[in-house]
Amino acid sequence: MEMISGGVCAPKGFKASGVHCGIRKNKSKKDLALIFSEVKGPCACVYTTNLVKGAPIAVTRENVADGYAQAVICNSGNANTCNLGGEDVAREMCALAGAELGISPSDVIVASTGVIGQPLDITPIAGSIGELVKGLKGDCRDACEAIMTTDTVPKEAAAEFTAGGKTCRIGGIAKGSGMIHPNMATMLVFVTTDAAITSEMLQKALSEDVRDSFNMVSVDGDTSTNDMVSVISNGLAGNTAIDSEGADFDEFKKALAAVTKTLCRKIAGDGEGATKLIECVVTHADTKENAVISSKAVISSSLVKAAMFGADANWGRVLCAIGYSGADVDVNRVDVSFASEKGNFEVCKDGRGVEFSEEKAKTVLGEKEIKILVDLNSGTETATAWGCDLTYEYVKINGDYRT
Amino acid sequence: MEMISGGVCAPKGFKASGVHCGIRKNKSKKDLALIFSEVKGPCACVYTTNLVKGAPIAVTRENVADGYAQAVICNSGNANTCNLGGEDVAREMCALAGAELGISPSDVIVASTGVIGQPLDITPIAGSIGELVKGLKGDCRDACEAIMTTDTVPKEAAAEFTAGGKTCRIGGIAKGSGMIHPNMATMLVFVTTDAAITSEMLQKALSEDVRDSFNMVSVDGDTSTNDMVSVISNGLAGNTAIDSEGADFDEFKKALAAVTKTLCRKIAGDGEGATKLIECVVTHADTKENAVISSKAVISSSLVKAAMFGADANWGRVLCAIGYSGADVDVNRVDVSFASEKGNFEVCKDGRGVEFSEEKAKTVLGEKEIKILVDLNSGTETATAWGCDLTYEYVKINGDYRT
Repeated sequence: MEMISGGVCAPKGFKASGVHCGIRKNKSKKDLALIFSEVKGPCACVYTTNLVKGAPIAVTRENVADGYAQAVICNSGNANTCNLGGEDVAREMCALAGAELGISPSDVIVASTGVIGQPLDITPIAGSIGELVKGLKGDCRDACEAIMTTDTVPKEAAAEFTAGGKTCRIGGIAKGSGMIHPNMATMLVFVTTDAAITSEMLQKALSEDVRDSFNMVSVDGDTSTNDMVSVISNGLAGNTAIDSEGADFDEFKKALAAVTKTLCRKIAGDGEGATKLIECVVTHADTKENAVISSKAVISSSLVKAAMFGADANWGRVLCAIGYSGADVDVNRVDVSFASEKGNFEVCKDGRGVEFSEEKAKTVLGEKEIKILVDLNSGTETATAWGCDLTYEYVKINGDYRT
Repeated sequence: MEMISGGVCAPKGFKASGVHCGIRKNKSKKDLALIFSEVKGPCACVYTTNLVKGAPIAVTRENVADGYAQAVICNSGNANTCNLGGEDVAREMCALAGAELGISPSDVIVASTGVIGQPLDITPIAGSIGELVKGLKGDCRDACEAIMTTDTVPKEAAAEFTAGGKTCRIGGIAKGSGMIHPNMATMLVFVTTDAAITSEMLQKALSEDVRDSFNMVSVDGDTSTNDMVSVISNGLAGNTAIDSEGADFDEFKKALAAVTKTLCRKIAGDGEGATKLIECVVTHADTKENAVISSKAVISSSLVKAAMFGADANWGRVLCAIGYSGADVDVNRVDVSFASEKGNFEVCKDGRGVEFSEEKAKTVLGEKEIKILVDLNSGTETATAWGCDLTYEYVKINGDYRT
């Protein structure tokens, strides 16, 4: 398995495009994206757990109920959520895309991100659907940009692996936390693969993967109403379809994880206002659940996040977060270290502080990617969570007047 | 029942003092507080739920196991937590106070707030215990200041009520979230009363009260290792001891709630970096639990907090927080309004946005105390939670280098 370039267009038979259709007022910002597979194939999705769900999620659920899809249409600039008639508009988006692509509207996945609580006007989408479809090409940069909100960089990843002797590819694009007024942060991830795999095994792979990937990312602890991760496969790699567990499924999962975890790091590192990616690795937990809860609590703590912004080795906040996380942990066994490309240093042993060099701490924590290593010394389970620092800029982005 | 002045010295027979003993380097900041009752009496405590607990909590638990206490000693500048020998130092603090006051060390409640992970030197405390006891007087301002860390104002409250025909008083002092390097926020609240009441009924009153008071406050979602609320009663009001439920117990609880809720508002409004107090009132919930979970999620949301800082009526974030809170809520019935002394305006009806005046929104949200009113339209239960806005200053306070 190796990482390759190309994002969602890396797998055979996938094309993408992105245009400015007019939902966003700024004409230099694309706001409508399309991903299309030459061949219809098995798909899988996971959705936000928020009880408030965007209209596109309801429509996508209906469309993928048969386990198949062939295209993704996604707009930015309006979340199509908490408004009247949102589902009709989402269905109309699928109908427009389906008609122009010559496929069934029920094979289209639809997503939206942006303003909540306002009607989404179908007019600009209808007016640009022709241009959007004509623009389909083997380069996903435009699509990647069209789903961005306050993301500062486009996010894509792809990997190549072998299944049944055939070279297969998985690629993805993602948008992280962003806002427009009034907003909420939304995470959208669209994954493609040319591997042949059944809907059931694809859903199994995705559902298992998100537990260790996107469910382990937090920018600000606010779960959006529109979060969605979808995978479409088209089988063009020519491998014997993966229809059960085994070596091929394992390879597929490894490549999927490589793509999703790369996107996780990009989403966390580009969190609103972030200057640093924070990765918390919890090892030697007695149960997976305790590892997961502990690592997420650490990267979610406002105090830990602010300390990382200040390059402050404030390990008491790490221990404190583990203590209130709800994880069943023997706090007297906990060791904590900080690490980056500039080295590592231990700050806490058996739940108590140890001496360390403040000079080394500043050097290590001055880097852009910080690891917080927590050893629970109680078992064999591990978890990794990704977050970012809390900065003045986060407050500025989210505290600004909408007007 | 009416609010009165005097804090913990409002009830008969209580005195307090506060000195700079030398734990903190800044000599203008007091760092050792004492509260003393002429008469030993029933007491009650509640403690942090963090698995990492400060040494003073272990020692206080031992000392109040018999249900009685007569004094509180509390230092700031060092949390006496996650270090070696912390419990011995906490016991020594009780021994020193007990010897100087002429009472048993086991009748002393001990608390600490400040630096975590460093040994607490008993020397400055021993050197100042004489001065501390000599300084006892019927004015709690010095004690109130001595427990402050980054609190910007001292926090006290008191109320007077009638039980069994006798005038009784309850008073309290509190410290909210503060930090020194490396820190954690700690909430400490010490309450006194001259009402006669049994240990059992006092504990019952306190345990029930904190559910609606201190457990409903969040500054940054980080539960400290040293949080503690204690109440000492001395019976000097001369009422027939409250030993069961009934009218007197109800009056006591009302007065206790008046004091604790006043302190809650002061703690939240003086949260680190805060410019505004945010109160979320959830009404018409089907269960108390759903009301509590919803209101706490709203005031804990970083996005809501940042929006309030910017006086932005970003109601989508309120709905979003309720949606991911875990409360079982019908989101299509939710109404949301914002209110302050300058009026109120509705932003969401039945889970969907309604038109409102941006001008009015800015006027209302420009105030120092903001109410977010959430009507779940599903039952009769209510909950109120208190928080504050998220500001540049919060990031600055918590992101600064410790050096």
